[in-house]
Amino acid sequence: MPDRSFHASALCEYLAHPYPDLRAHVLALLGTEPFRMPVEIDRAVHRERVLAAVRVLADEGLGSLAFPTEYGGEGAPEKAIAVFETLAFGDTSIVVKFGVQFGLWGGSVLQLGTEKHHEQWLAEIGTLALPGCYAMTEIGHGSNVRRLETTATWDAEADAFLLHTPHEGAGKEWIGNAALHGQVATVFAQLSVGGEGHGVHALVVPIRDDDGNPLPGIRIEDNGPKVGLNGVDNGRIWFGEVWVPRENLLDRFATVTPEGRYESPIESAGRRFFTMLGTLVAGRISIAAGAVSAAKVGLTVAVRYADQRRQFGPEDGAELPVLDYTSLQRRLLPRVAETYALHFAVRDLAGRYAAVLRLQKDGDEGADDALREIEARAAGLKALASWHIADALQESREAMGGRGYHAANRLGKLRADTDVFSTFEGANPVLLQLVAKSLLTQFREEMGDLQFLDVMRYVADRAGTRVRERNPVATRKTDREHLRDPEYHRSAFRYREERLVESAARRLKALMDDGVEPFEAFNRCQDHLETLATAHSERVALEAFLDGVAAAPTPGVSEQLADVARLYALARMEADRAWFLEAGYVEPAKSRAIRAEVGVLCRELREVAVSLVDGWGIPEGVLGAVDVVE
Amino acid sequence: MPDRSFHASALCEYLAHPYPDLRAHVLALLGTEPFRMPVEIDRAVHRERVLAAVRVLADEGLGSLAFPTEYGGEGAPEKAIAVFETLAFGDTSIVVKFGVQFGLWGGSVLQLGTEKHHEQWLAEIGTLALPGCYAMTEIGHGSNVRRLETTATWDAEADAFLLHTPHEGAGKEWIGNAALHGQVATVFAQLSVGGEGHGVHALVVPIRDDDGNPLPGIRIEDNGPKVGLNGVDNGRIWFGEVWVPRENLLDRFATVTPEGRYESPIESAGRRFFTMLGTLVAGRISIAAGAVSAAKVGLTVAVRYADQRRQFGPEDGAELPVLDYTSLQRRLLPRVAETYALHFAVRDLAGRYAAVLRLQKDGDEGADDALREIEARAAGLKALASWHIADALQESREAMGGRGYHAANRLGKLRADTDVFSTFEGANPVLLQLVAKSLLTQFREEMGDLQFLDVMRYVADRAGTRVRERNPVATRKTDREHLRDPEYHRSAFRYREERLVESAARRLKALMDDGVEPFEAFNRCQDHLETLATAHSERVALEAFLDGVAAAPTPGVSEQLADVARLYALARMEADRAWFLEAGYVEPAKSRAIRAEVGVLCRELREVAVSLVDGWGIPEGVLGAVDVVE
Repeated sequence: MPDRSFHASALCEYLAHPYPDLRAHVLALLGTEPFRMPVEIDRAVHRERVLAAVRVLADEGLGSLAFPTEYGGEGAPEKAIAVFETLAFGDTSIVVKFGVQFGLWGGSVLQLGTEKHHEQWLAEIGTLALPGCYAMTEIGHGSNVRRLETTATWDAEADAFLLHTPHEGAGKEWIGNAALHGQVATVFAQLSVGGEGHGVHALVVPIRDDDGNPLPGIRIEDNGPKVGLNGVDNGRIWFGEVWVPRENLLDRFATVTPEGRYESPIESAGRRFFTMLGTLVAGRISIAAGAVSAAKVGLTVAVRYADQRRQFGPEDGAELPVLDYTSLQRRLLPRVAETYALHFAVRDLAGRYAAVLRLQKDGDEGADDALREIEARAAGLKALASWHIADALQESREAMGGRGYHAANRLGKLRADTDVFSTFEGANPVLLQLVAKSLLTQFREEMGDLQFLDVMRYVADRAGTRVRERNPVATRKTDREHLRDPEYHRSAFRYREERLVESAARRLKALMDDGVEPFEAFNRCQDHLETLATAHSERVALEAFLDGVAAAPTPGVSEQLADVARLYALARMEADRAWFLEAGYVEPAKSRAIRAEVGVLCRELREVAVSLVDGWGIPEGVLGAVDVVE
Repeated sequence: MPDRSFHASALCEYLAHPYPDLRAHVLALLGTEPFRMPVEIDRAVHRERVLAAVRVLADEGLGSLAFPTEYGGEGAPEKAIAVFETLAFGDTSIVVKFGVQFGLWGGSVLQLGTEKHHEQWLAEIGTLALPGCYAMTEIGHGSNVRRLETTATWDAEADAFLLHTPHEGAGKEWIGNAALHGQVATVFAQLSVGGEGHGVHALVVPIRDDDGNPLPGIRIEDNGPKVGLNGVDNGRIWFGEVWVPRENLLDRFATVTPEGRYESPIESAGRRFFTMLGTLVAGRISIAAGAVSAAKVGLTVAVRYADQRRQFGPEDGAELPVLDYTSLQRRLLPRVAETYALHFAVRDLAGRYAAVLRLQKDGDEGADDALREIEARAAGLKALASWHIADALQESREAMGGRGYHAANRLGKLRADTDVFSTFEGANPVLLQLVAKSLLTQFREEMGDLQFLDVMRYVADRAGTRVRERNPVATRKTDREHLRDPEYHRSAFRYREERLVESAARRLKALMDDGVEPFEAFNRCQDHLETLATAHSERVALEAFLDGVAAAPTPGVSEQLADVARLYALARMEADRAWFLEAGYVEPAKSRAIRAEVGVLCRELREVAVSLVDGWGIPEGVLGAVDVVE
């Protein structure tokens, strides 16, 4: 029997890196008022408590970590993500409101604005003296941001923009902080200068007076009760010919001169658009990080319960803990393993993101390309992690039976709160299409619709580099050593991604050769592209996990994690074994052997299951007690 | 372009059978007070409204349909299920409270009691004059009912049973109607007579006085807020040495004579136990029926929305309805098809169940065996349908993006309310194990643990009958006519089930031959048995669907449904294609062809998607409006 306490504490220590003190600071706050929420809470009260919690975070200097030091921050986006990740162990409304204020509203000023904007607003954003909104989504346009309908029309005489909502359905929708607390908003609108349209740009617009009433020309509606996240005051906003001063255009990537000339260092309108959307990257990494934390909460509660709860047993013998049943092991343990994989993938990505921002600041030429790759990873991991949380919480709830249905148990509320993670900041299916397109163009193109020629070129480029050959022996090998070999897993995941890139490109080309329009060709291949994007993201996750295993500080932790990584790899291969079979990468006997090995690994890891979840280090006071009355 | 309105109305008419008038009656009620619930509602108010709604149902004579005519009913269990199914279009708390009162409490008196009990209680149960509970589950025992710990000890002197909760964790748990409205309860307890234990039996026990206070010796606690179903007053009950008169033992299957002799027409204690659990069959069919209705609500809302909501499109062209995207077609349409399959499967099962009860009443010898088969079908379909609803509602919510996250949209609430369907009246994974064991013994054994000999005998029995041979041509055939042939689908589903029965039996035998104890052998095979049970239930669903296609009144409806059945069959085969590949039943090229054909069928059915959901006939007022503001 392995020593659980040893593993759990050593794991905890390893997983807290980087920034263990920062995480401990946030964890300590989560155990205090106003962070702890009662099981039942009135929506209005919930909103005020969430605001109070965000105020505490601001007071503790935790809101401005990503901002430059001159505005009260530390210039450390990775730290901001670490705070977000840790906050997600607690009430989800708090972490979302935190993200709205500092990540979206603050992030838009920081990343889309220039020095004058930073000076004017960043410090007050960081202290929450100036609560604001990120008003992108509209009622009629969620995913297709490029077609937003709010207009910002340059007026030379007024030296200002006229902001306008052309019809009811073009109102801003789901805007966090809008219903109650936001005083200003970064508004995304179609910019038009001298009669010429320049696409979507962002302007900072005051929306409320000091008494909290909407300013003239502005109409705000509360979005009302939601499935979850009711501590966040989402709202709708309509603008009726509202004047916005010229200097309020966030003009890092495009500006309008006092003479009324539109100027941008980025020539392509498409590229400019996607550069501005780059503000969403930090948000997507944060959501992925938050989803991983929520999965940890759910699985910790469920695994601990299943380790204690007894039911059935041999005839006339004692009843067994339900985690001794292979059916439940197979439900919970691969999800624990996936949570570990995503943990390392998100940490890795946050580190890469911070590094690229530093490069960019230093004027490094490769920074933009590196950022493109990070955008694709962020989109893919956000999709994977947000679907994982829905799935993991569902299995956790079911594993706890009726106990999981108590509102006092955190699973149900967490499920409802995080459900929208698969939708906001990019609907998952849309994100996966973007990831696939980005892979198809090897991160070189903007993420607009690929044109026929791009695909042709791509396929031609690849003609020389054959997808690595299937090894005819490996398709049949079923011995344990081989099946558990991380290098085998790595090759399998890489093979799948490479082959899917190639086959998707060929399929697209064949369709276009047949005269199908590119848009329709991509539409017909959506399932293929989704499979590709998932394969890519899982490969990224596996490799980050294996790096995490290699970097573990002690052999004990490393060995333990290596087995978890094996389970992750084999369970994903099992789940996608139809693909591997169809591709001839495994033969039926090997596919069955993989399935069997997943079962064996689950049985082995059942012994350390509690220490694996304890390794996530969620304090009892934050987790909520598991009551097993028997 | 097919004529949508024709199909929808013709479909509606067909799907309303049997009992179109009864369904229409319930649908009409759902549009009235107190059935319509506001989006946000206080828990206490919700509970009272739900009680009021159940009272209306009782007043309309809809609660007692399954009871004999002499007690105000119609002796028509199928009609009771039809009412339950239709009610499930509305507030889920109402249908669950309805099920508790008439199905569980009433059903226990009807099916476990004898004439004296019927006379004493059934009429008052049907009118809701006597609200009651079904107190089976305990805090420490949910799935393993056989090990309940509440005791009922016969006392000769008192001519009564002493009912007792031996410790806190043996308290009754999650009992519907217990927290507020129940005046009596059918309590399941370990019966002991003259020092001898006879296993779990049911007794009717008054729990509240006329003022609604718990009777002496009885402690009741409110289960408090839940993830959903907050209109149902679930509670915990503990008994402290409570006397229960001898005649309150529901004694259809076992009685205690005034002389204190335990007598039962069923010799085997195991068989007696499972016969008593037979009371759960109607409940499981009802839950499956309710889950199908909830899936219909969710998919109707989502499909209509996706047919209208536009997003993206060809460069510079109009935006497309999102249902034109193949990714969304593949998410929604197979789930519409599965909902149809389960619709027909549940209707078929309800009919069989009613027929068997009639046989049983007439003293038919085959009735018991037929009932065993129905129990297995009910357990399997309950599991399939309750997981389907969670899955279908999730996809529906995501298909609607943020719109699906409004509380005003019904999806979120429905998701939370129905989440526990996979747990109550038998946790799905446990039910699937029961189904598999039942298949392994060809419905001949009781559903206790199979013993070594049973398996031996089973395997021996089958030695002569080989699983139907794979046809080497069919494993490769990929032409459309073949892939769409219902007879091909039927053979594939049957082949899978037969081969899984055989391989599971062989695997179990091999383990036991190696000296593994039967309990542990079954534990190791849980994944195999779950796959078998699912394959069985899907075969049952497909065959019921094909029967439904054949019975359609007009060629138009029949052709339409035939395509939906094709999509169901091929989408399930696609989902399980790894199994078919491993078994050598399809070759890789054929597996890919099945995938492609699913895509083609989805594209074809997209054109009639709205009429397919309109065919379910859910009135606007019940469905809730879909607001597409653009």
